[in-house]
Amino acid sequence: MKFSILYFATLLSVSALPANPKKNLIFMVSDGFGPASETAARDYIQQSSKFPETYMTDLDKLLIGSSRTRSADSFVTDSAAGAVVFASGVKTYNLALGVDRDGKPIGTNMEAAHRLGYKTGVVVKSRITDATPAAFASHVLERGMGSLIAEQMAGLVPAIGRNLDLMFGGGKCMFMPNTTTGSCRADTLDVISEMSSSGWSISQTRDEFNNIPVDAKLPIAGMYALDNVPYSIDYPVNNVPSLPEMAKKALSILAEASKDSEHGFYVLIEGSRIDHAGHDNDLGTHIREIIEYYETIRVVSEFIDANPNTVMVSTSDHETGGLGLGRDNKYVYYPLTYQNQTKSIEQSCLGLLNLPLSQRGAYVTEQMLPVHLGISNVTESVASAVLASTIKSQCLLSMSAALSRDSNILWSTLGHTGVDVNLYAKGATTEQLSGCHENTDIGKWLTNYLNVNIDAVTKDIANISVAQYPYTRNPSTFVYENYSHE
Amino acid sequence: MKFSILYFATLLSVSALPANPKKNLIFMVSDGFGPASETAARDYIQQSSKFPETYMTDLDKLLIGSSRTRSADSFVTDSAAGAVVFASGVKTYNLALGVDRDGKPIGTNMEAAHRLGYKTGVVVKSRITDATPAAFASHVLERGMGSLIAEQMAGLVPAIGRNLDLMFGGGKCMFMPNTTTGSCRADTLDVISEMSSSGWSISQTRDEFNNIPVDAKLPIAGMYALDNVPYSIDYPVNNVPSLPEMAKKALSILAEASKDSEHGFYVLIEGSRIDHAGHDNDLGTHIREIIEYYETIRVVSEFIDANPNTVMVSTSDHETGGLGLGRDNKYVYYPLTYQNQTKSIEQSCLGLLNLPLSQRGAYVTEQMLPVHLGISNVTESVASAVLASTIKSQCLLSMSAALSRDSNILWSTLGHTGVDVNLYAKGATTEQLSGCHENTDIGKWLTNYLNVNIDAVTKDIANISVAQYPYTRNPSTFVYENYSHE
Repeated sequence: MKFSILYFATLLSVSALPANPKKNLIFMVSDGFGPASETAARDYIQQSSKFPETYMTDLDKLLIGSSRTRSADSFVTDSAAGAVVFASGVKTYNLALGVDRDGKPIGTNMEAAHRLGYKTGVVVKSRITDATPAAFASHVLERGMGSLIAEQMAGLVPAIGRNLDLMFGGGKCMFMPNTTTGSCRADTLDVISEMSSSGWSISQTRDEFNNIPVDAKLPIAGMYALDNVPYSIDYPVNNVPSLPEMAKKALSILAEASKDSEHGFYVLIEGSRIDHAGHDNDLGTHIREIIEYYETIRVVSEFIDANPNTVMVSTSDHETGGLGLGRDNKYVYYPLTYQNQTKSIEQSCLGLLNLPLSQRGAYVTEQMLPVHLGISNVTESVASAVLASTIKSQCLLSMSAALSRDSNILWSTLGHTGVDVNLYAKGATTEQLSGCHENTDIGKWLTNYLNVNIDAVTKDIANISVAQYPYTRNPSTFVYENYSHE
Repeated sequence: MKFSILYFATLLSVSALPANPKKNLIFMVSDGFGPASETAARDYIQQSSKFPETYMTDLDKLLIGSSRTRSADSFVTDSAAGAVVFASGVKTYNLALGVDRDGKPIGTNMEAAHRLGYKTGVVVKSRITDATPAAFASHVLERGMGSLIAEQMAGLVPAIGRNLDLMFGGGKCMFMPNTTTGSCRADTLDVISEMSSSGWSISQTRDEFNNIPVDAKLPIAGMYALDNVPYSIDYPVNNVPSLPEMAKKALSILAEASKDSEHGFYVLIEGSRIDHAGHDNDLGTHIREIIEYYETIRVVSEFIDANPNTVMVSTSDHETGGLGLGRDNKYVYYPLTYQNQTKSIEQSCLGLLNLPLSQRGAYVTEQMLPVHLGISNVTESVASAVLASTIKSQCLLSMSAALSRDSNILWSTLGHTGVDVNLYAKGATTEQLSGCHENTDIGKWLTNYLNVNIDAVTKDIANISVAQYPYTRNPSTFVYENYSHE
């Protein structure tokens, strides 16, 4: 009789499922995080915590495959084209946001989800208007058009409408009129004021963040820094909410707001500054941003355990820095070299270049090398190289070199590279994404999971302005497939 | 009635399976092949063949996870410790073969499989006595002891016995007495002659290889080069069997030899020289060795399709070279830069350094740069750098640099790095290996798949000599866990 009981039990469980079960989707981006980044962060944790060599990071446990990262016009993508693939499922040219390779606006799965009734949000450590979040809810020919991006993401452009219910991150400067101190806008528009008028509640400090109730009225925005949210290594001198804190609050708010709806929520969570530390060739800060990303993964994993109708997919848009875990034909590398670092190279270098020349020598020998990088025996040649810096990139490189010879690692670039990146996931049906994928496959999977129609959005926004500001590139003459360098 | 038919059909198929089904295991190693190697080879093929951007390599289709590569004494393994993990399932110190971290002999799954009745073999492009194959059937304190390794692998050491039925590869020099030209042995032992006396049939040329029948008597050895089998890019001037040819013949022979046995076969197939080209920082040759490895994967895949009781696992021991697919903050890299290369940098440099100084200038400007590397516009500075080489490493680096600035890539080392490597598999039950693994997990899985007992072998060989030749390292004082560089 066993089989017949099983047979009817199966019938029963199938019929008990609603035709369109309510679903939540958490898409996570570890920006600028290549395979060597994962190895280095794991090795650092294992060594500094004296864990067994079998230690698995929060990402290691969730590895399901890899993503191939090229854009439409280069084997090395930027973060704009690298995010459009996830938001819209198509390759476009580097720097493009919400437009295809011909510069025509294309809808995003977040816009389509919002129109269908999902609650939507972006939670990032970069400016809210930076490439990755912007790719989900803006349409411009070039990512540098931050002023227009801010208006679009805030829902102030009627032809696009409001597609986000929640925005947590940095980059308040892009929402402030350029008549105010700290603004980075190109015009006098007070976007924060316009947002308030159109119904957004906005928080700007750690205290205000702490006081946001779980049943906060949507739309809600949190802007916790003029520019990027600080690196986690610099939190001690910056009272800001961390990425896992922002993520946890966002999940609670979005879950609460969608609890009585037939649709769930869709949120992007980005470890944005893993990438920035790679650009700075600052491995100590890079590792700490990755560790903060692991903490965020734990927050998300716990949410999924408690809400099994939720899935998470985590990947990267590209590698940044070209991190080589070995140099000079020596079969070693030492992650603990970065253990005593206390400040990001970025902030350390900003400190240097803001000082008058007369004070720089003492700052280098008394602060930058022994305190910020934690080097116990500062040599004259290392200190001289840092002191000779007159621009930021020189300072970054000399500070990076001050540790990387000891750690026996080498970066290949201050930019991005073309290597495949890792793909992680948790939750029912995500096993469909196992294996090696072109990055567009991941975007298409997200869209299918949400069961939304991007084409309808694309049709709807066909005539919006994607170039309000001067833009020199002519998309019609742009040669997408020309990889030749001759 | 449907379910009851299914029910009895299931019962029938289960009862039809033998208690211990006959199994074949093909373990493949792409030595020195990191994540960036796969990206570069794919991009090269896609571009040169004008395939769509969705093109999947033969490995891409089989990706199931990653392997973490550290050894017992460094985050950067060598190929000896990096192969012991697969053969014996334990971490050991760099340079060790068939011994644990205390220098004590440990059995291998290939030895255990042979004792149980499996037919066993190694098929490689390196010397047969090189680290990866040697880890499966030899026991020495240091991989440099090639003379002893050859004797052990040939089954001439009674306390170990013969554990291999087939050996195809290079490195004949290690089997020839040092009284003969081309020998690399430390003594006068004629191993080839000893092997013949003890029953081995030995082939040494392409013609002899071609004439090996599928029902060849075992044991059988093929040694097709004094040193390594040439790089595939150099095949036109070397009449040797390729890796896919050796693999195909080995599979046929081993399948035939085990056809009437209750046990199948277990073979190691290694793309050994992917690693060597990484050591040379020679991306054009590296890519072509990877392409040859893809061809070998196809041979193996076809065998598995025809023999579903066979599984294949493919991974790497480590990355070599620290290949960064992007440099100088430029968001491009150009794989086709290597399209016109016609000779390995190794052979090109050997040609240079074997010439009298007076002839080197013409060789550099007329052969090395325009013909071997295929550079159309040779500049004086590039030619001067190559011409200035007085030792091999200088020549390798200047030849590598002659292309890598154009291709916009950068290598971090002439040695290995610590980054995780990719894991690929095909065949029933290999999905058990999905995800991120410490490399020892892969060795343990192979052993479990074979259902053999390594411990019995370890006990059996406890008193063999692992240091017949002078050896200075004292394993008892070797500090395995000291990663500090202070």
